[in-house]
Amino acid sequence: MSEDSAANLRILPATECDVAVILGFIRKLAEYEKLSHQVAATEELLRETLFAGRRVAEVLIAYLGDEPAGFALYFHNFSTFLGRPGIYLEDLFVEPEHRGKGIGKALLIEIARIAKERNCGRLEWAVLDWNQPAIDFYRGLGAAPLDDWTLFRVTGEALDNLQL
Amino acid sequence: MSEDSAANLRILPATECDVAVILGFIRKLAEYEKLSHQVAATEELLRETLFAGRRVAEVLIAYLGDEPAGFALYFHNFSTFLGRPGIYLEDLFVEPEHRGKGIGKALLIEIARIAKERNCGRLEWAVLDWNQPAIDFYRGLGAAPLDDWTLFRVTGEALDNLQL
Repeated sequence: MSEDSAANLRILPATECDVAVILGFIRKLAEYEKLSHQVAATEELLRETLFAGRRVAEVLIAYLGDEPAGFALYFHNFSTFLGRPGIYLEDLFVEPEHRGKGIGKALLIEIARIAKERNCGRLEWAVLDWNQPAIDFYRGLGAAPLDDWTLFRVTGEALDNLQL
Repeated sequence: MSEDSAANLRILPATECDVAVILGFIRKLAEYEKLSHQVAATEELLRETLFAGRRVAEVLIAYLGDEPAGFALYFHNFSTFLGRPGIYLEDLFVEPEHRGKGIGKALLIEIARIAKERNCGRLEWAVLDWNQPAIDFYRGLGAAPLDDWTLFRVTGEALDNLQL
C-alpha cells in the first residue's frame, strides 16, 4: 500500500444508510465479471436481507477519505471436517481508479482478522477462471485453489421443480 | 424410492442429542471422500457450534424406521446478484447399505422445500471431480455445474499470516 493512500484508508462495517453504495458496487462488480444480466438485487431487497431481521451477510466498506472506494460482502459458512465455522467471501470489489493501492488486500486482511477473532478455521471464496489478476492476487496472499471440487447450483425453475 | 423404504423414511431436524450420530456420518463421508486426515471435528465442537449460541448451520437426519440412514448439513449463503439468501449444502451422506432407496433425493428435496419456504434464490454445493455417481445424481435433479468458477481457500498458517 502506498504511504498516502494507507493514511487515508478506513474500513468500516456498512449500515442501512449504505444500501445505495452497496448496490452500486454490486452492479460494478457484475459488470467487471460480465454477469450484469444476473443482477436482480434492489436497494429494497438489500435493506431487507442485510439490515432487517436475521442478518445473513455482513458488509465492509473501504473509504479513501470520505469516498467509498471498495467493499467486501461475507457470511459464515461451516466446515464439518473442522467442526468450526468459516467465513465465505462472496464479493470483493475495488473501484478501477483505486486499484493497486492495497485496498483489496486491506479488506481481505480485515476479514481474516474477523475470522480469527471468531475462531473460524477457514476463509474461502470463488474466482472466475479467466480473472487472472484476481487469481495472482489471491495466490500471492497464500490462498490455494481447490482444483478438485466443482460447484453445483439449482436455481429458478429447476429449484421450483425439485419436489416430491 | 421403493415403496417399502418410502413408507419408513422420516427426515427430522437434528438436536443436541444427535451429535454422536452426526460426527459418525461426518467421519464416514470423509472416508468416502478420501479426506479422513482432514477431520478435526469432535462431539464437543459440534455441540458448541451447531447447538449452542448463534447457530451457523442446520442438520437434517433421515431415519429408516428408527435407524439413522443419512444426513444433510446446510447453512445460509447470500447472493449479492439476487439480493437474496440461498442455501449451501455442505454435506450430504447416505449409509452405503441404504443407497439407491431415494434417501439422498428425499434429503435434497426437503432442503429445496426449506429454501423455497425461506424465499431463497439458490441451492448450491460442491462435488469432488472424481465422484461420478454424485455428479450423475445431481445432474439428474436439474443441477448445473459452475464450471467457470474455482474455489480458493486460506486456512491454517496462511490464514494466521494474513495480517498487516
